[in-house]
Amino acid sequence: MQTSFSTASPADRVLCPVLRERIMTADQAAGLIQSGMTLGMSGFTPAGAPKAVPQALARRIEERNANGGNFRISLWTGASTSPELDGALAKVHGIERRLPYQSDPTVRKEINEGRMQYVDIHLSHVAQHVWFGFLGHLDVAVIEVAGILPDGRLIPSTSVGNNKTWLEQADKIILEVNSAQPAELEGMHDIYYGAAVPPKRKPIPMEHPFDRIGEPYLHCDPSKVIAVVPTAQRDRLAAFTAPDEGSMRIADNIIDFLQHEVKAGRLPPELLPLQSGVGNIANAVLAGLNKGPFDHLNAYTEVLQDGMLDMLESGKLDTASTTSLALSPAAMERFLANIDYYRQRIMLRPQEISNHPELIRRMGLISMNALIEADMYGNVNSTHVMGSSIMNGIGGSGDFARNAYLSIFMTPSTAKDGKISCIVPMVSHVDHTEHDVQVIVTEQGLADLRGLAPVQRARLIIEKCVHPDYKVAMSEYLERALRDAPGKHTPHLLDQAYAWHQRYLKTGSMQA
Amino acid sequence: MQTSFSTASPADRVLCPVLRERIMTADQAAGLIQSGMTLGMSGFTPAGAPKAVPQALARRIEERNANGGNFRISLWTGASTSPELDGALAKVHGIERRLPYQSDPTVRKEINEGRMQYVDIHLSHVAQHVWFGFLGHLDVAVIEVAGILPDGRLIPSTSVGNNKTWLEQADKIILEVNSAQPAELEGMHDIYYGAAVPPKRKPIPMEHPFDRIGEPYLHCDPSKVIAVVPTAQRDRLAAFTAPDEGSMRIADNIIDFLQHEVKAGRLPPELLPLQSGVGNIANAVLAGLNKGPFDHLNAYTEVLQDGMLDMLESGKLDTASTTSLALSPAAMERFLANIDYYRQRIMLRPQEISNHPELIRRMGLISMNALIEADMYGNVNSTHVMGSSIMNGIGGSGDFARNAYLSIFMTPSTAKDGKISCIVPMVSHVDHTEHDVQVIVTEQGLADLRGLAPVQRARLIIEKCVHPDYKVAMSEYLERALRDAPGKHTPHLLDQAYAWHQRYLKTGSMQA
Repeated sequence: MQTSFSTASPADRVLCPVLRERIMTADQAAGLIQSGMTLGMSGFTPAGAPKAVPQALARRIEERNANGGNFRISLWTGASTSPELDGALAKVHGIERRLPYQSDPTVRKEINEGRMQYVDIHLSHVAQHVWFGFLGHLDVAVIEVAGILPDGRLIPSTSVGNNKTWLEQADKIILEVNSAQPAELEGMHDIYYGAAVPPKRKPIPMEHPFDRIGEPYLHCDPSKVIAVVPTAQRDRLAAFTAPDEGSMRIADNIIDFLQHEVKAGRLPPELLPLQSGVGNIANAVLAGLNKGPFDHLNAYTEVLQDGMLDMLESGKLDTASTTSLALSPAAMERFLANIDYYRQRIMLRPQEISNHPELIRRMGLISMNALIEADMYGNVNSTHVMGSSIMNGIGGSGDFARNAYLSIFMTPSTAKDGKISCIVPMVSHVDHTEHDVQVIVTEQGLADLRGLAPVQRARLIIEKCVHPDYKVAMSEYLERALRDAPGKHTPHLLDQAYAWHQRYLKTGSMQA
Repeated sequence: MQTSFSTASPADRVLCPVLRERIMTADQAAGLIQSGMTLGMSGFTPAGAPKAVPQALARRIEERNANGGNFRISLWTGASTSPELDGALAKVHGIERRLPYQSDPTVRKEINEGRMQYVDIHLSHVAQHVWFGFLGHLDVAVIEVAGILPDGRLIPSTSVGNNKTWLEQADKIILEVNSAQPAELEGMHDIYYGAAVPPKRKPIPMEHPFDRIGEPYLHCDPSKVIAVVPTAQRDRLAAFTAPDEGSMRIADNIIDFLQHEVKAGRLPPELLPLQSGVGNIANAVLAGLNKGPFDHLNAYTEVLQDGMLDMLESGKLDTASTTSLALSPAAMERFLANIDYYRQRIMLRPQEISNHPELIRRMGLISMNALIEADMYGNVNSTHVMGSSIMNGIGGSGDFARNAYLSIFMTPSTAKDGKISCIVPMVSHVDHTEHDVQVIVTEQGLADLRGLAPVQRARLIIEKCVHPDYKVAMSEYLERALRDAPGKHTPHLLDQAYAWHQRYLKTGSMQA
């Protein structure tokens, strides 16, 4: 079922005659983009982001603005992207409005210095809000693909993200056809074409993470394609750092808890589908599961990292559904070397499916996500530093936490060499409320908050999760609040609730 | 299809011979309840709450505790209940732990004075968390029904709530058979028996609010029934107060907005299924819709109030799905007088279905809920007063706001004769984050927040929604924060963010 491509030139991945006629350079393609346009680009992590056109566009913007222009565009993507996309465009101050997620240092700087409007959206909401017309008009889609079939259908790349929606909603399409992406990706994707706008929606016919509900290709109207740009460049992947001791302790705490839940009959022996956020703690948990007591696991997640590849390789994990392959360079080599094995076990899907509340709730995920800070009542801040500055964005954490069978948030108990306590009296921004947070785990221990009232939650979080350096101060705050607050349900002293944050802003440490 | 009951005595509603043998008084039934038990009672609003056993239990508790006992129970319900249930048990300090929602003044006092543990849960999560074993063991179900069929199946009462789950999960069952509830309720209910625990869940086969997916009766294992208590008492219903001018202005603002959305092609002319929270603003909006330009509407909601009955009567509303009939006494009379008409147009369902994320998202609801306070960035507090005291609870607002097509929050711009601004710089508790709030509306105007970044949201909310008495102060806070905050994405000054709340606590007014 694999398409046979010749490899004489990068353009050989374009088998559709009409689209071969649209082949041009990245600079030529970028020349078709005008100031004020909204662009929907591929990319969910650096995986599958376009490699050439964004950089050509950044050059165009820089040149135009150096000559007195004010060339800016709005940028929609799947999630975060790469330095060649977000980084390049932000560096030339070319992005007016950005959604739905980012993790680029230059973009972050633009946002926090007030030069870029950033709309932080649940990743499962993005596609439908575009379909509903809530976010405005999409002018041009810029999508990386691994190849184009003779009839114009597209072999998706290493991420799917919102590409289906961008291709359907944009007036015009620019395709980057990347011959450095393995042609063997063909057949790994599951693009669901049953979506509709209310009142015409139907149940999504998935009951198991590996049920195929769609097609392996993206549809594309050739008449909308204004440029096809051949490229040959791998995804820019981040190296994997070995888990530190704290992360391994967090992983141990989670695995102990899951064993306890299996013993209590609240989880089946093969658990339930795993969702795991990005980052080193998540990878440590996956490494722990890879040595752990559970077999025949499955994953239903938005990002497949090294840890899950290891688990697929070892056989601990039977299958994994994701919208992005965010592997380290070393893991990518292993993936490529055994791609036929992995194609039987990995499915790549649109993010509206990987993050869909209907599916997350139905399949009953075990959801594990990192956080920036939690408070003693179990509210979680996933996005803001000291209440004002964006770090990355909410991403899929809300989709998963709200709808999961078990919603676990994990964090080191402190950051910045102990100068910040990641558990605070009151979070400076709320992304996940007490209603959506069932378990908080640090290297100190794990607080199972299910069925507890706020003050009970606070006592347990202080006992189990807070770093010893902050324990006494937090207990004292709780007792003061129980004594002096205007109510004892969630006692807070509003003149002291942010004292730790204020101290950090003033002195560089939350410690008194 | 209606069962024929004789009316000689209240016991005549019990057609099942085995269960007739269990008929006893409320005091006898309450005598079967022991201290420390967890009770799952019917009731979603006063509708369908048991009328006799809770009061008998309160008497038992009072007597036992007067004699040195420490008789307390844990109480689970559908949502809020009645003075005869929550009120009576709270008055004798008989409730140790309460979930998932309440609105009773005595319960509230017990919680806020630290004598009752209150676990505030999304209403769609309750049943599944009990099935998952997350909330502990259920000892006794106390359920009001309108009748018992010869084979033991139950005709549900004026609310369904969590009754299906309580009947299935409890060790023992006490039934109150209320002959004052209309026997003609039979056939109005749709009890879905396709639910399961992951990994065995299937898609819920509903595409339109009035698709019947279940059965009209509740199943009940007769061997678990330890008592059947005949009663003959109507639901204690609250009178309807006519909408005030502010509520009518809010209603006008919403209807203008919906018309604008239809014109822009973002809503069909018959809109999408309506969800409407409880209270006078909600009723005003429904009254507005009843005179408004939209026809062939449908409702998919958790509480059916007077306003929806009026719309069914006028023909504006084709059908309504709900889990509770919370009518005023006058509306109840009209309902009873035309019950055959309404039975064709109203369906009563378990709250796990009325509030199910899968269905809310699929059908694309227009969700309208009240709030306690919102902040200038669009975060919403639905539960807490001044950050510490519980008012009622989150109820279904999170189920609807997160998953709706359009999520609208409505509030007067001020409360307490202007001493409180319902829009504040930073909410003192967050139940719905900026990610879940698309529209905020007050009598001053409507802020459409879709697609806006935080500072843009703040400027619009200040312009459209804030009361003139607070506008300058809030603008000044925003400008100060833009100047001095550590970041310009969501600029906040953590030492000033709660200045208005602190002033209110000190002086009784937020105004300087």
